[in-house]
Amino acid sequence: MNPTEWFTEQHADAGSAFSLKIKQKLHEEQSEFQHLEIYETETFGNLMIIDGCTMVSTRDNFFYHEMMSHPALFTHPDPKRVWIIGGGDCGTLREVLKHPSVEQAVQIDIDERVTRLAEIYFPELCESNNDPRADLKFIDGIKWVKDAEPNSVDIIIVDSTDPVGPALGLFSEEFYRDCFACLSENGMVVQQSESPLYHMKLIGEMRDAMSNAGLSHLQTLFFPQCLYPSGWWSATIASKGDLSKFRESDSANKPFDTTYYNVDIHKAALAQPEFVKKAFNL
Amino acid sequence: MNPTEWFTEQHADAGSAFSLKIKQKLHEEQSEFQHLEIYETETFGNLMIIDGCTMVSTRDNFFYHEMMSHPALFTHPDPKRVWIIGGGDCGTLREVLKHPSVEQAVQIDIDERVTRLAEIYFPELCESNNDPRADLKFIDGIKWVKDAEPNSVDIIIVDSTDPVGPALGLFSEEFYRDCFACLSENGMVVQQSESPLYHMKLIGEMRDAMSNAGLSHLQTLFFPQCLYPSGWWSATIASKGDLSKFRESDSANKPFDTTYYNVDIHKAALAQPEFVKKAFNL
Repeated sequence: MNPTEWFTEQHADAGSAFSLKIKQKLHEEQSEFQHLEIYETETFGNLMIIDGCTMVSTRDNFFYHEMMSHPALFTHPDPKRVWIIGGGDCGTLREVLKHPSVEQAVQIDIDERVTRLAEIYFPELCESNNDPRADLKFIDGIKWVKDAEPNSVDIIIVDSTDPVGPALGLFSEEFYRDCFACLSENGMVVQQSESPLYHMKLIGEMRDAMSNAGLSHLQTLFFPQCLYPSGWWSATIASKGDLSKFRESDSANKPFDTTYYNVDIHKAALAQPEFVKKAFNL
Repeated sequence: MNPTEWFTEQHADAGSAFSLKIKQKLHEEQSEFQHLEIYETETFGNLMIIDGCTMVSTRDNFFYHEMMSHPALFTHPDPKRVWIIGGGDCGTLREVLKHPSVEQAVQIDIDERVTRLAEIYFPELCESNNDPRADLKFIDGIKWVKDAEPNSVDIIIVDSTDPVGPALGLFSEEFYRDCFACLSENGMVVQQSESPLYHMKLIGEMRDAMSNAGLSHLQTLFFPQCLYPSGWWSATIASKGDLSKFRESDSANKPFDTTYYNVDIHKAALAQPEFVKKAFNL
């Protein structure tokens, strides 16, 4: 393959790579925190790359953004205050704000440049940025959570890059303890938790860290995500409260459109593959 | 990427490509029907390529083989006679023969060389080839079905390559009519039906062809399959009889091991994503 015609992400340690055919590079910069690239692809719309890793494409981001938000928001009994740590492309924020119960959604991404580029190249993901309930902060999310008052948030969505570099601290027990301290009574964390085919060890360690931090009710959800390593991804909900039920009727009657998520997909995402059940003694 | 270190499949029309890091090429030949290659990969075990397309790897074939067989076999009320059209790597045959009710499993692959190579490079997939219930034929599956007597089979699993070249006829209404004619009362066809992200038009046309052929009860199931284009795959069950229920209790108490499939995964695979429901008016 001609490297000028394809963007390729090699998946470290996994021995695989995924490539998208590109029409042109639209933008490239080194921000204060990361190396950012934007491409126009042949078939996936625009593509954002951070430090060499695919983050978001126009075509297939709906899987990730919907599954990082709607299962948690339809599980919490009454989600009013939501924080998104990371998530600078604003796609998760858009999904969160589809829920009428939400009174405040704070997006805390350390790198303002990600959001500024999303506004230009992924305007549909940013369409709720001016919602009066939205608050975009460009500061350190780890410190934000550490400094927060008790009972100040209902759901914390950790929409981060992979657990290397700046995002590593977002997968630590210390961070989850800080989350626990500022979450309300039925509060929960949702963490993007990598590929169940490639990263079971990481998922297991993350679940242990969450549980040790007092977020002892755990749910790992599974969904397709073509652009991420292995094409299969997960999100893990860690909650102070019971997760055995979700608001099925509200989900079935959701007052907004989605592309992937619905009440049946919610239940389906909770099904644990046989090898996962064995690995986690479920 | 150095092309001597990676095997890359470019997904025609989809504008994407997937690569696996290889240690060495183990075998290459032009059979009477297809170009066959076997590689040893760094992380996916052995890899079989047919006409440039990834067919099966040691590491991740369990998704496909389990989902092509167990949902159908746990849906049919009493599957005794199963035919596998294609499936020369014998992985589907192995899964089918795990069901005690099966009295006869006939694998009909036109290319004997696929099976001979699987016996060498994927011996675990071939471990049931000597089961007295197994019958391996190396003839044209389309003709086999056309010539079959009425009421001669309960489940036909179409475990084929993509609908180009020799496999094209396996996606046609004429083929499904021939299946209908030889299936027993509650008989069903299971067809691998490509990627829901890339091939929705094909899936829709295939569902119409099945329905027009009298197999009017349809179920498209979804599952991860890292090595296939987009990493997300589907199988479609087309049945003479009702598909609204499956043998849940038998599935929950299955007398054999699996790696992905279980009763919850069966139900999960039946969940239809929102965009699929809209496309097929479900």
